[in-house]
Amino acid sequence: MPMPVLSNSSAYIPASAIRVLTPYAERAEAEGIKVYHLNIGAPDIKSPVSAVKAVADFRFDHLPYSNSAGSLELRQALTKKYYNKVGLDVCPDDILVTTAGSEALSFIFHAVCDPGDEILAMEPFYCNYSTMSRMNGVDMKAVHTDIDSAFALPSAAEIERHITPRTRAIIVCNPSNPTGTLYGKAEMLAIGDICRRHDIFLICDEAYREFCYTEEPYFSAWHIPDLDQNVVLVDSASKRYNLCGARIGCIVSRNRELLELITRFAQARLCPPVLGQVATLGALEADASYFEAVRNEYIARRDFMIKALNDIPGVYSPVPEGAFYTVARLPVKNASDFCKWLLAEFRLDGETLMLTPAEPFYSTPGCGRNEVRIAYVLEIPQLKRAVKILEKALVSYKG
Amino acid sequence: MPMPVLSNSSAYIPASAIRVLTPYAERAEAEGIKVYHLNIGAPDIKSPVSAVKAVADFRFDHLPYSNSAGSLELRQALTKKYYNKVGLDVCPDDILVTTAGSEALSFIFHAVCDPGDEILAMEPFYCNYSTMSRMNGVDMKAVHTDIDSAFALPSAAEIERHITPRTRAIIVCNPSNPTGTLYGKAEMLAIGDICRRHDIFLICDEAYREFCYTEEPYFSAWHIPDLDQNVVLVDSASKRYNLCGARIGCIVSRNRELLELITRFAQARLCPPVLGQVATLGALEADASYFEAVRNEYIARRDFMIKALNDIPGVYSPVPEGAFYTVARLPVKNASDFCKWLLAEFRLDGETLMLTPAEPFYSTPGCGRNEVRIAYVLEIPQLKRAVKILEKALVSYKG
Repeated sequence: MPMPVLSNSSAYIPASAIRVLTPYAERAEAEGIKVYHLNIGAPDIKSPVSAVKAVADFRFDHLPYSNSAGSLELRQALTKKYYNKVGLDVCPDDILVTTAGSEALSFIFHAVCDPGDEILAMEPFYCNYSTMSRMNGVDMKAVHTDIDSAFALPSAAEIERHITPRTRAIIVCNPSNPTGTLYGKAEMLAIGDICRRHDIFLICDEAYREFCYTEEPYFSAWHIPDLDQNVVLVDSASKRYNLCGARIGCIVSRNRELLELITRFAQARLCPPVLGQVATLGALEADASYFEAVRNEYIARRDFMIKALNDIPGVYSPVPEGAFYTVARLPVKNASDFCKWLLAEFRLDGETLMLTPAEPFYSTPGCGRNEVRIAYVLEIPQLKRAVKILEKALVSYKG
Repeated sequence: MPMPVLSNSSAYIPASAIRVLTPYAERAEAEGIKVYHLNIGAPDIKSPVSAVKAVADFRFDHLPYSNSAGSLELRQALTKKYYNKVGLDVCPDDILVTTAGSEALSFIFHAVCDPGDEILAMEPFYCNYSTMSRMNGVDMKAVHTDIDSAFALPSAAEIERHITPRTRAIIVCNPSNPTGTLYGKAEMLAIGDICRRHDIFLICDEAYREFCYTEEPYFSAWHIPDLDQNVVLVDSASKRYNLCGARIGCIVSRNRELLELITRFAQARLCPPVLGQVATLGALEADASYFEAVRNEYIARRDFMIKALNDIPGVYSPVPEGAFYTVARLPVKNASDFCKWLLAEFRLDGETLMLTPAEPFYSTPGCGRNEVRIAYVLEIPQLKRAVKILEKALVSYKG
């Protein structure tokens, strides 16, 4: 029987760090064990009713392609009903609708990097950045940030020490998945200065823009002065409206040459999902009260969760100021082994807990080995129970 | 003002050949001119009512991710309600649901090729194969097929002459976009033999499997003996159910190692569109009468269109046996100039015609310069009018 060889990508594309424990969880659930899922950013929050209604009311007898850049109607609505309202002077021509933030990242990496080029990120960073960059032959280079300084932005000098002639961009996720760290105006201006000095792109993943828990207004990369041609926003309806499955995101930039090139990539895949565009168009009718309610709920969850974590002996979590994740240090040698053990062996009254080991979010070897990413995406009573399980598990664990 | 440089992809990724004339068409339409669109495979055929109903009946309060490989429910339904019914012994584990055929192609190219590797295709071939392969650093190599022999498959010796140590796969679109050529059992076995001898993959794009107009039953690459590990099907709901905008396709293979690798790519982009999966799940309820009605309609359109084209002095089209395209030769020097002229200048009672130049579907320089791709995706009275416009235009044209 012939057996053709695969590409070398089998060596350099890892299985998803976020999903690698899934079989253990499925086995536990098959045994009737209740698993609290704090492992993935799949919240229980309701989408705006206008999104649900838009899909229910959508009439079609067949479903043709939309424009490759997304329907003009959606790009206009994004402009007027979202960006302009939150103070970003975006116009429809600045927007290219993508199959969620994932495709946006992939397109941008391909447009700004040739194989062997480098993109700089503060570690820990969203682990799929690595996979997508590797699929495009791009090296993600990490600037270390540390849990003990609450993942604060390193100095400009420290960041610039990592810039080489192959560095094409800095990528920032603000607020951050996985740490929940929120960069304010000072940090964003500092990053902008570096990009301006080296004339490299600033890719800013603002998928969690609405999830900020400080009083200071959000400072978008869009507002960095004199950096129009360098700033590229990655955006997404997934978390903002809890429409992860709609697979709608967008690229926003004033760099015409960049968008023109990405349009060519976009034409090759024809168009973004049309029904997801319908749902997003509906979601854009949501008013400020929707975001306010969601924000208040997450602040309450965050406040509960971080205090409860820090109350467990040996556990430490900084206080995240955005998104709905935190990276916490556990009193274990190897968090990955601990997470597996939780799913495979530990039960408290027939329940257990799923967390994501943080190590794959770092690229410096050995970093984050005793850390986990926790998504506080459940209601407080469930979070309370999950923390209790964690506390008891840490007492029992011999690993 | 800084201006960061883009990647070299700006040089090697062309604008879509299918969409490059769009601005001319938009200008004509803005002037109030009616344009008959025979340029794109966006048919007017209705989707199954069960697909429409599935979307209308779908209830959600938020929209979470599905499994990265597509929901198990959809993969089971694809198996039982489609593949097994059309005689393909596929099981749910053989299927990975993708964001339409486009993503399926991109994933497969990346899984079987390293940069600099080659994939062989019979030209003319679907022009987005080139774009997707270039984005993955892969060279598409063309084996020429000719309009004068109705794009018949070349001899095995001629095909093998193009195989080099870097050739990783042969890609076949059967029936073919853009020519409508249908390979029968003999041709598929011949291609299978080549792949077996050289132990390379056979990527078979069967998006138009239901659109076959001969009495002979369709012979899928799936049925080639002793080639289990080499055959990879690209499939799509887009044309089959006229759900182009749903963006649902799939990869089907018995090669576990290949699917395991592609699953890692799939995890990095999280999941295929969930609402598109809902529509497709509904569409799978369509029974044989749906396909029968669509097939009869296309046979009638094809019969009308090909006769009408060949009745125009100087025009020649072979008789396509599948899909809903044909490649026709026109009595002009440069079909691209002619297509632009149709949109920009020619009017017959306030109407004109949009066709796609065939040259970008060839990779041998100079081939197909006087050919066009015609999609017969309108009702016969409209096709009749479109052919009349073409006939009059050819008389007027001085190019």
